[in-house]
Formats: sequence, structure tokens, C-alpha cells
Amino acid sequence: MSDALPPEFSLIGKYFRPLAGPGSLDLRDDAALLTPPPGRDLVLTVDAMVAGVHFLPDDPPDLVGRKLLRVNLSDLAAKGATPLGYLMTVSTPRGTPESWFAGFSAGLAHDQAQYGVTLLGGDTTSTPGPISLSLTIIGHTAPGMAVHRFGASAGDGIWVTGTIGDGALGLLAATGRLDDPDGYLAGRYRLPRPRVGLGIGGVASAAMDVSDGLVQDLGHICRASGLGATIQAADVPLSPQARAAGAAWLETCLTGGDDYEVLMAVPPAKESALRDAAAVLGVPVTKIGVFHPGASHVTVLGADGEPLTLAKGGWSHF
Amino acid sequence: MSDALPPEFSLIGKYFRPLAGPGSLDLRDDAALLTPPPGRDLVLTVDAMVAGVHFLPDDPPDLVGRKLLRVNLSDLAAKGATPLGYLMTVSTPRGTPESWFAGFSAGLAHDQAQYGVTLLGGDTTSTPGPISLSLTIIGHTAPGMAVHRFGASAGDGIWVTGTIGDGALGLLAATGRLDDPDGYLAGRYRLPRPRVGLGIGGVASAAMDVSDGLVQDLGHICRASGLGATIQAADVPLSPQARAAGAAWLETCLTGGDDYEVLMAVPPAKESALRDAAAVLGVPVTKIGVFHPGASHVTVLGADGEPLTLAKGGWSHF
Repeated sequence: MSDALPPEFSLIGKYFRPLAGPGSLDLRDDAALLTPPPGRDLVLTVDAMVAGVHFLPDDPPDLVGRKLLRVNLSDLAAKGATPLGYLMTVSTPRGTPESWFAGFSAGLAHDQAQYGVTLLGGDTTSTPGPISLSLTIIGHTAPGMAVHRFGASAGDGIWVTGTIGDGALGLLAATGRLDDPDGYLAGRYRLPRPRVGLGIGGVASAAMDVSDGLVQDLGHICRASGLGATIQAADVPLSPQARAAGAAWLETCLTGGDDYEVLMAVPPAKESALRDAAAVLGVPVTKIGVFHPGASHVTVLGADGEPLTLAKGGWSHF
Repeated sequence: MSDALPPEFSLIGKYFRPLAGPGSLDLRDDAALLTPPPGRDLVLTVDAMVAGVHFLPDDPPDLVGRKLLRVNLSDLAAKGATPLGYLMTVSTPRGTPESWFAGFSAGLAHDQAQYGVTLLGGDTTSTPGPISLSLTIIGHTAPGMAVHRFGASAGDGIWVTGTIGDGALGLLAATGRLDDPDGYLAGRYRLPRPRVGLGIGGVASAAMDVSDGLVQDLGHICRASGLGATIQAADVPLSPQARAAGAAWLETCLTGGDDYEVLMAVPPAKESALRDAAAVLGVPVTKIGVFHPGASHVTVLGADGEPLTLAKGGWSHF
């Protein structure tokens, strides 16, 4: 005969324990135990997601779970790290239906299997506010092989994976402000595609994932590396759906967030290695510009070769 | 000339970067880098804290920061682990005054110095709800020396550090429902005293920190270890202030939360080792009962030797 536990514990047992992997102690302890892979560096990152800020309150819970995991996997991918495990906090308003937990954990289970990562530990609490989530992920790299924001050199090319702008347009589509006939754009907003397994260690001299907008995030690499950057707007890869939205949305694509593609500095001598690494994943990579000496500006050149003036994005021409 | 960044970045630079330590990359990257101490096991745990649930909305922000760190340090202490570093998410409503960030980070800085731990990484976001925080802490132990909830044996004594019940009474005091002439009880609620450095590896056969109430948490060790437990209410150490509150509050002390003391199973042969470990920290330790074979009940005996019937606490006499 076992004594009754509060409802928190049955939710954990039913929905979160099945996600738990090695070192989690089956979520039955106060802490997880991890024997680090010998001789590897650990790479750690954390992101919070709040309903109404980072996802829409009526987003399907399985996609919320998958997005929470994927935005963190994306950070690891941009460091060249292999995912290992994660810890998570889940704060929900009283009355959150059990179906939300069922969907949320099913989404996590799906993506755990896809990306080879398991739950190490967590904390569930109530909140008088909206659903608030955090996820800390742990990955590993060979010693000294993690890729940082710093490290780019003048002359390195500026490269991106996939297509840029779909996430920002997708938020507009998901909230009824932009046509999205096939649902592709909203899908890109709701479900990032982290480039896990893109082997950029030893290939990219600097990298980060594009989460706050291409121009602003490129500015981060510029500042960290002490360089300027110039990109050609016409070379920024857009999806057919983003092109169909029309040229009026170009600035949104360049400065919007939620792309979760990898932005890289790649020395010319490493370009073929990058193409090989991308081919393994079947991910397109595109050169959009070059780093150069100078102030930590990002200059975006239009089709006429003149700099564009962008109203937003951590960038000003003046 | 550096281009302007959103206000988020100036808050990070002003208040969080000074907390950053080795591996944080000065909070200028998307991920932290940690070379694990060779040949050590890592111990990881995470807790969320939400204003209005885990702390009072008008609690001084420095104490909120310190409590956030300390509740996690307490988990590590109960595993016998040495703290290494932490990652954190901070979600605040728009309009949160800069003074809140100043106080919050000052509290963290104070306790980082006290407990020898530094910030590895984090994420700051806005929220339409109350302040929501999460903290993931990483510690380490000698291989195989982490103490778990499981592992207690029949005949092991049940021991606690410090005094029990002050946190629960302190919440009542802090909200005006209990007299607290010297402010001690409210202070115990607002500022836990994690028993970092208590060397229980190889001493305690099982342990956890008391955060959800002594009786409930002892029940966790019972279930994980497959044992019953009997404690003597009269042996549970109470502070003079808790004794002054009167016998009517005994059940609150036994079943309330927020103690952040260490609850341990200690074999008789290890009792002197426990006393030695506690003496290093200057922390009192008290034996309050014994584990025995049987169903995973927690029985609390009153002064008359008869079991008490507690209305709350994951425990039922029936």
C-alpha cells in the first residue's frame, strides 16, 4: 500500500517519466547524474518560452513541446555540438487540461527520437500567468572544436543554411496577417528545423543560429569578431512561399526572427568542406556576403548595389 | 562606432555579465562551454520560481535572486555535490523597474561569492504574467559518490540538519498570519540556508532536501528505498521561535515546505562520520527516527507513543 501523492506526481509519472533517459534516475530523485563523455567539452544553453510571447496560446501543445526542444537544439547545432540531454521547467496555470500535457509530452517524445536526446530532469509548477517553459540542453564536442560567435576573419564568406524569413512571415500568417495558401510559412514558425548534425566544427570560423533576425544576429558575429559585414539582399535564400509574398516583405525576411537556420563565417578554403557537411544532412547552404575589416556594421546591398536602409534589426545605415 | 542593440542587451551587460564566470564566454555567445572536471560525475538539477507561487511579489529582489540560487544549491548539497555553475532564465513583465534587475543580480552576486559558483548562461524574456524564473545548476562528485533518494536500509537512522518548520511558519509570518517578533521565521522563508559543503557522500545511504515538507519528503525516500519510516515528533528539532509559536503549529512544521534542510538515512556505523561532517559546517544534526521494513508509510509518533493523524502531507494513517 503506497500513500497518495499530490496530482503533480501523477502528471510527472504519466507524461514526463517516459521521456527520461540515462542519468535521469527515472525522475525519481532531486537531481540527475551525468558521467560526461570522457575527453569531450560540454556545451550548454538555455531558452525560455512564454505563451503569448514565444508561441501562440492556441498553438497545438505537441508543436509547443517540439519547438521548445528545437530552439535549443538549434543553438547546439550552431556550435557544432552533439546533443546529449536536457532539463526542463513547465509552469502551467491551474486548470490546464491533461490533454495539454499529453500533447506537449508526445511532441517531446517524437523529437527526442528524431534528434537522439533524452530528458534528464525537470520541475513542474503552477503559475497565475501564462504557460511558461524553460529548457536547458547539454551537448558535447571534441575538445576545442565548439564554434563561437567570435573567430571570423576578414575575407570569410557569410553563409546560411536553408531559407531566411519564413519564420517571421509564418508568425504573420499564423495570426492572419499574411496569406499562406499551403500553410508552409505558419509551419516554419511553429516548428523550427534545427540543423543538428551539421558538422561545422573545424569548418566554420564563427557561427550562431538565426533567432532574432538575420541582420541583428550577423551584427552579433561582427561585434564578437571585430569585423564589418556586407551581404547582398538578392543572394539571401528565400523559399518560394516567401518570394510569392512579394518584395514588400523583404525587410521582414531580413530582420524578422524565428528562422533557426545556421549563420556562419566560412574561410574560402573551407567552402568545399562546408558543402560536404551540408550534403550529409541534405541541407542547402548559400553564400550571402563577406566579412571585412571595419566597424561592426552590417551593410545590406540592394539589387542596384546601393545600401538598403532598414528600419529595424539592430542595424542603422546612419 | 557600434550599432545600437535592444534594451535586453544593455540589461544583460549591466547586470548579468558581471555574474558570468569560466565557460560563460562572457555571455556573448549562444552557449556556454564547460570542460568537465576529469573523472568526476556531474549532478544537475533545475527549479522554477514564479512570483505569487514560490515567492511573494513584493519580496526584495536581492532575496529573490538569492533564494533562486539557494533552492538549487540545496538540491546539490543533499546529493553531496560540489557546485560548479548555473544557467538561468528570467522572464519579467514589461515595465519591471531597472532597480529590480539591480537588486536581483546583486543578490546573486552575493551568494555566488558565498557558495563558490558562477553564471554560465541564460535567457531573458518578457512575459505578460508574473516574474518567472528558472535555474539549472551543475555540480560534481567523485565517481559513484552522489547520494540518492534510494539506498536507505532498514535500521538506518533518520537524520535532519538544522531545524524543521521555520520555512512554513515563515510564510505565515511574512503574510501576516503569525506573530514573528524578531523576524526570524520570515527570514527563514525568504532566505534558505543550503547546507553546501556537508560531506555526506559515503556517510548517508540516502538523502534529499526538505522542500515539500518533512513527512512528504521522507515518504519519497521510503518509496525509493522500499521501506517504512517512523519518526518521533518530539525529536524533530524546532527553533526557539517555532516552539514559541505553540504546539498548535506542530503539524505545520512537520508537513509544511521550504525548510531546505537535508534529510538523511544514516547507518548506525556512520553516525560519528555524520557528526564530523556536520561539525565542519557548524550545522546541528538530529536523529528523529528510523527506517524499517514494511510499506512505504511515514508514521509520526506523538509524545504518548501513539501515531499522530496528520491531515496533510502525503501521509494518511488510514
